[in-house]
Amino acid sequence: MAGFSTRKGLLMYIVAEKEIAGLMTPAAAFEAIEAVFAAMAARKAYNFPVVREAIGYEDALYGFKGGFDGAALTLGLKAGGYWPNNQKHNLINHQSTIFLFDADTGRAKAAIGGNLLTALRTAAASAVSIKYLAPKGAKVLGMIGAGHQSAFQMKAAAAVHSFEKVIGWNPHPEMLTRLAETAAGLGLPFEAVELDRLGAEADVIISITSAFSPLLMDAHVKGETHIAAMGTDTKGKQELDPALVARARIFTDEVAQSISIGETQHAIAAHLIAEEAVHELGAVVTGAIPGRDGAEVTLFDGTGVGLQDLAVAAKVLELAIEKGLAQQAEL
Amino acid sequence: MAGFSTRKGLLMYIVAEKEIAGLMTPAAAFEAIEAVFAAMAARKAYNFPVVREAIGYEDALYGFKGGFDGAALTLGLKAGGYWPNNQKHNLINHQSTIFLFDADTGRAKAAIGGNLLTALRTAAASAVSIKYLAPKGAKVLGMIGAGHQSAFQMKAAAAVHSFEKVIGWNPHPEMLTRLAETAAGLGLPFEAVELDRLGAEADVIISITSAFSPLLMDAHVKGETHIAAMGTDTKGKQELDPALVARARIFTDEVAQSISIGETQHAIAAHLIAEEAVHELGAVVTGAIPGRDGAEVTLFDGTGVGLQDLAVAAKVLELAIEKGLAQQAEL
Repeated sequence: MAGFSTRKGLLMYIVAEKEIAGLMTPAAAFEAIEAVFAAMAARKAYNFPVVREAIGYEDALYGFKGGFDGAALTLGLKAGGYWPNNQKHNLINHQSTIFLFDADTGRAKAAIGGNLLTALRTAAASAVSIKYLAPKGAKVLGMIGAGHQSAFQMKAAAAVHSFEKVIGWNPHPEMLTRLAETAAGLGLPFEAVELDRLGAEADVIISITSAFSPLLMDAHVKGETHIAAMGTDTKGKQELDPALVARARIFTDEVAQSISIGETQHAIAAHLIAEEAVHELGAVVTGAIPGRDGAEVTLFDGTGVGLQDLAVAAKVLELAIEKGLAQQAEL
Repeated sequence: MAGFSTRKGLLMYIVAEKEIAGLMTPAAAFEAIEAVFAAMAARKAYNFPVVREAIGYEDALYGFKGGFDGAALTLGLKAGGYWPNNQKHNLINHQSTIFLFDADTGRAKAAIGGNLLTALRTAAASAVSIKYLAPKGAKVLGMIGAGHQSAFQMKAAAAVHSFEKVIGWNPHPEMLTRLAETAAGLGLPFEAVELDRLGAEADVIISITSAFSPLLMDAHVKGETHIAAMGTDTKGKQELDPALVARARIFTDEVAQSISIGETQHAIAAHLIAEEAVHELGAVVTGAIPGRDGAEVTLFDGTGVGLQDLAVAAKVLELAIEKGLAQQAEL
């Protein structure tokens, strides 16, 4: 036992960014995120305070999102950030690495490329909300935003629910080809629409933009609808009309983050809702609270927490070891 | 250029804990710490907020100490903590790993065993204080504490100043053999003494204990003396009589940490000194402020900051690459 632990402690795994796409499936990401949301709601897992610093060099934002899941024994952090001038290095602007630690000993266990995993865990979070909150018989998926992440979002949504059609809107209409192509890949018809039609026709809406003022208004949304608002993760960002937020039954990944840097920050600031109106999605997963509960509109405010990164990274590490794709180094 | 950067970005170095002893010298650690203290005082380097969490498992404390040195372009964090039950795994209780990032791209650059480096950077900090603050002609080194770190402290002090004798005290006298043996290894005579003799005879005193009440009293200390108080890094810990602190000209690694979790917390709380009395040691290194400046007693309150870990890790990485001892993995 001691020998085993010591040997384990002296080795570190490294899983390269380029291996992630072949290892991780939307289904595996979904399971990992569903489980960690449940662990958070059951108070078995918690996120640490987030460190986020403008370092005053290369206009970069850098920081750490850590956490501990005492149910899965997943411990560690995602480190990295946003380097806006990375094109000159032929690298994407968002760069992150996930480090897992052995909860039994405190030794570093793995370093795992975090770029694709960040997109997958974000998409998995909205997919979990769709599983638990989509109106019965939902047929039309509405996409607001057509950036890099929108394709991951659509694929994860389609993996968890059978939609018949996708409709979409983007501030720059020329980018809508991404949504059309992604829908085609999923065998789904796609139509570009204005926001009023999107709000009226979609049963499930995923919003994934970097907007700083509301795009989807309360008057746009008709009938039973679930909205996954995935874009707002900073003070000042905003995708939804606060009146729409106030009308919805609201869920989030982490309440403290939702009301401070998530989509609900604006409805809270305008005194349209109180913190108590914001529920944990994980509590629906565990069955502690009901989901739609008769609400016409439900909202999932996805802000993104470190435990999500750790959960998908732990799954990838398991798969990489299984398939012989985890490099080893002595630490 | 782009090709080079991309290639560089895709590789990660790993330097094993067992290689550190052969790579890092007290002199190299000294230079790294002296330079980073200067960069901090010149506002070219700063530490990030510290994350420190009792994770509720194995009684472990876990966290992150990050920072950015814009002069050396050193970016990253030390992650790890204290696992009090590690003996059952044949591992030491303090476990840490240092992760360096590329400041130009945000990509992870290296994982480096941080256990020995933590001891070396702590010893180097007190050695820097001795270089700049020891009384002229100091001959006698007084050691308070005989734990694991005391040997590193004595060696680093002897490397920066020629002492003629070491005297020492420890709450458990049977542990004083460590000090005697370390002194013998340095070719120095050693004598175990009580604290009143230690304070009266030592020209330089290093205190490195985990005490929670004052050991060295104001009345103990006679004549020109420099004290490096290295043990206090948490609220409640204390090694020195607050009256002694108040009498000294005070220096520290980081003022905000010194007054909140360092040795000066008690003199501040007792209103014996104000924050303005606590100076940065780095400002003496840069020549911005004088050192002893006629003071009878000087104090260096070493609290330990993330930038120290990053500074010695960056040096070790450079040496490991030079000597072919840095493992590489694709990230």
